[in-house]
Amino acid sequence: MPYIPLEDHLPGITGLLEYRQDSAHPIRELTQILLRGPSALSEAERELIATIVSHSNECTFCTTAHTAAADKLLGEGQTTQAIKNDIELAPVNDKIKALLIIAKQVQQSGKMVTSSSIKRAKNAGATDIEIHDTVLIAALFCLYNRYVDGMSTRLPDSNEYYQNLAERLVTNGYNRLPQGYDHLKKP
Amino acid sequence: MPYIPLEDHLPGITGLLEYRQDSAHPIRELTQILLRGPSALSEAERELIATIVSHSNECTFCTTAHTAAADKLLGEGQTTQAIKNDIELAPVNDKIKALLIIAKQVQQSGKMVTSSSIKRAKNAGATDIEIHDTVLIAALFCLYNRYVDGMSTRLPDSNEYYQNLAERLVTNGYNRLPQGYDHLKKP
Repeated sequence: MPYIPLEDHLPGITGLLEYRQDSAHPIRELTQILLRGPSALSEAERELIATIVSHSNECTFCTTAHTAAADKLLGEGQTTQAIKNDIELAPVNDKIKALLIIAKQVQQSGKMVTSSSIKRAKNAGATDIEIHDTVLIAALFCLYNRYVDGMSTRLPDSNEYYQNLAERLVTNGYNRLPQGYDHLKKP
Repeated sequence: MPYIPLEDHLPGITGLLEYRQDSAHPIRELTQILLRGPSALSEAERELIATIVSHSNECTFCTTAHTAAADKLLGEGQTTQAIKNDIELAPVNDKIKALLIIAKQVQQSGKMVTSSSIKRAKNAGATDIEIHDTVLIAALFCLYNRYVDGMSTRLPDSNEYYQNLAERLVTNGYNRLPQGYDHLKKP
């Protein structure tokens, strides 16, 4: 039961982004830039960062949504499960392992990011901008997870909701759907 | 020593916002809306939320900067010190106490926000939008604190820097200074 009145058919973040649309606009824009904008990191890799941070923050809505988006982009569901179990053993390359470990450190606290974890990422080929973006994406999902759970938003009624949401995030990204596409908001 | 090359004369968040200006734009915009936009909460009260979250995250740059901004808006420095010591004993009204406690819960985790802390805020006169904004401001500073410390940004050389920064935040808010005002970036 949300702590403020949110539309019943809009679970998780979706009701909050409708509740205050002026603050929602830059949140959507930042997410679109970081997760869908030009980057040497693939969209799937960036969704893995969102997934591991949301998972570590135990945010059910965000974890399930970004797991579904990453799975759709990867075409399989083993990698998301593997990074939740143990990043070191997951079927991702060394650079992504190092970046996911940095993301988990950011989830705990900015102060938890160590120079050795940065060095490991650089040795594995991570560029400055990839490290920057990893830290900022992880920090952004610390915002999202707190927003979603801090307002006690409700979960969707079915797993199908997440599949439809993920389809939308993969196809349309994070920008607000234009008027006339409202049916897509209510999968 | 920052983990990526940032301009020497731009400590804390300021170097990061210059490093990647496209992502900086929505971050600035969100902050301007939440901390300077129309609200029943005063600018000082909103700076207190930024201060208590940054303090709880032990982010020196953000804590000192927003303490200085709140002090300037309040015209005294006792309130910021008091909320860091013990919110319950601080010289703020019951509504602000209740909202600052919610902000501290958000800092720990979205899941830490309790229905009893929300009820206390509502009983003290907090509206839905004030509760919403408190949670989102607290979540935003969890992003900022992680961004600033996760990139290991450097601190300014003097306390005067924070006074000049606070003056700018009080006078100009959080939008980027237009070209030609660069001298204000280097107080």
